[in-house]
Amino acid sequence: MTKITMIGAGNLATHLCRALIKSGHEITQIYSRTVYSASNLGEEINVSYTTDIKSIKNSDLAIIAVNDDSIQDIEKHIDFPKVHTSGTKPISTLNGKNIGVFYPLQTFNKNIDVNFKSIPVCLESSNRDLLQTLKNLAVSISDKVIELNSEQRKNLHLAAVMSCNFSNMLYRLSEELCQKQGIPFDILQPLILETAQKIKNSSPSLAQTGPAQRGDFETIAKHLKLLGNDDEKKEIYQLLTASIKKRQ
Amino acid sequence: MTKITMIGAGNLATHLCRALIKSGHEITQIYSRTVYSASNLGEEINVSYTTDIKSIKNSDLAIIAVNDDSIQDIEKHIDFPKVHTSGTKPISTLNGKNIGVFYPLQTFNKNIDVNFKSIPVCLESSNRDLLQTLKNLAVSISDKVIELNSEQRKNLHLAAVMSCNFSNMLYRLSEELCQKQGIPFDILQPLILETAQKIKNSSPSLAQTGPAQRGDFETIAKHLKLLGNDDEKKEIYQLLTASIKKRQ
Repeated sequence: MTKITMIGAGNLATHLCRALIKSGHEITQIYSRTVYSASNLGEEINVSYTTDIKSIKNSDLAIIAVNDDSIQDIEKHIDFPKVHTSGTKPISTLNGKNIGVFYPLQTFNKNIDVNFKSIPVCLESSNRDLLQTLKNLAVSISDKVIELNSEQRKNLHLAAVMSCNFSNMLYRLSEELCQKQGIPFDILQPLILETAQKIKNSSPSLAQTGPAQRGDFETIAKHLKLLGNDDEKKEIYQLLTASIKKRQ
Repeated sequence: MTKITMIGAGNLATHLCRALIKSGHEITQIYSRTVYSASNLGEEINVSYTTDIKSIKNSDLAIIAVNDDSIQDIEKHIDFPKVHTSGTKPISTLNGKNIGVFYPLQTFNKNIDVNFKSIPVCLESSNRDLLQTLKNLAVSISDKVIELNSEQRKNLHLAAVMSCNFSNMLYRLSEELCQKQGIPFDILQPLILETAQKIKNSSPSLAQTGPAQRGDFETIAKHLKLLGNDDEKKEIYQLLTASIKKRQ
């Protein structure tokens, strides 16, 4: 059992608290800048909370789960082992000898339940003892624990933006195309889900289908014509089609 | 029970035959240009097969499940009710009074089992009677049946390319980024799957997250710097980031 101080009371902090308590760890204190968030989470999990950074008490580990820009302001008040949870900030954002990173790779929303077991947790630490503590903590809540340095984590975050935030943008473009034609967007959902599931047992390069992959230039020309004077969608269509063709 | 002639013995024809038989319909004959495909499917489902287009016998309905470019060559030999299964070809690709479209929206692979019930089937027909036959057939194998005209279907196909083929391309780019850093790509899979699942109960515009959506210009600048001289990924990053920002 690790005794943990949770710094932050947002989406990630909330899900982390729930998962850690479920796995038998103790949250000893919650800090948040806003009373509303602090009290909400504190009351949910029955833990004392504070909005005064100077009244944070020592524990085995502080998990700093706040937005990237606030990490440095907060971390200087914590002089016991501490980790941040950011995908983009290097470990050196923290000061001291017992510092680390505990980065769960997922999008979180307080009101949507997640199965933490399936969420990869990426770890980094300034020393072996703390790394071992973090590993024990991570494997108790997740089935996928991996050690990554700051450079790797930064690139992983970029890859996540590419494959997830940008995929969602493509879903939006395709929803716009459907709406314009009075087609309910939900009929695309089984195909979208199948596309995401396909790469579980295969690599994305093997899973590639579509006119660009087949070299079906007639269909590509028809699609570009369909897009008419929608230059934005046309440019995205051409760019991604070229990327597929380039890799054949 | 509808008696059906299956024209084609590829991925879609195979899955359609399996689903139709399961729902109590009768496949009376299979045609394929290649003996290998025809005999494989014919033997699997115990139905007589032919490679001679002139020996196709009448049935209630011919389902033409061949590649787009072969539809016209084949359809002229069929003088009983017939449908094609293409997403991009208009209904007018077929000639006669009893023509239609039966377009299941999914990617198929002979060796991967699909739950046909969840696959949307898009219908179009030249007349009401045939449309009713197609509806009965479609609802017996799928829970999602929708009537779309040729213009709508063509746009739906374009939307499918946008949201699925292009998403897969983004997965490939992100796999490349991971490989370069020695990061196993599979740690992105839970996030990719969650992104695809999120839009089930929400619209893609509500589900949008990431630095472009948050207006986090520092992270965007860092990502572009990380991409160094990889102009292809940079261009895609900038274009999709601009699309997200434009819609805020």
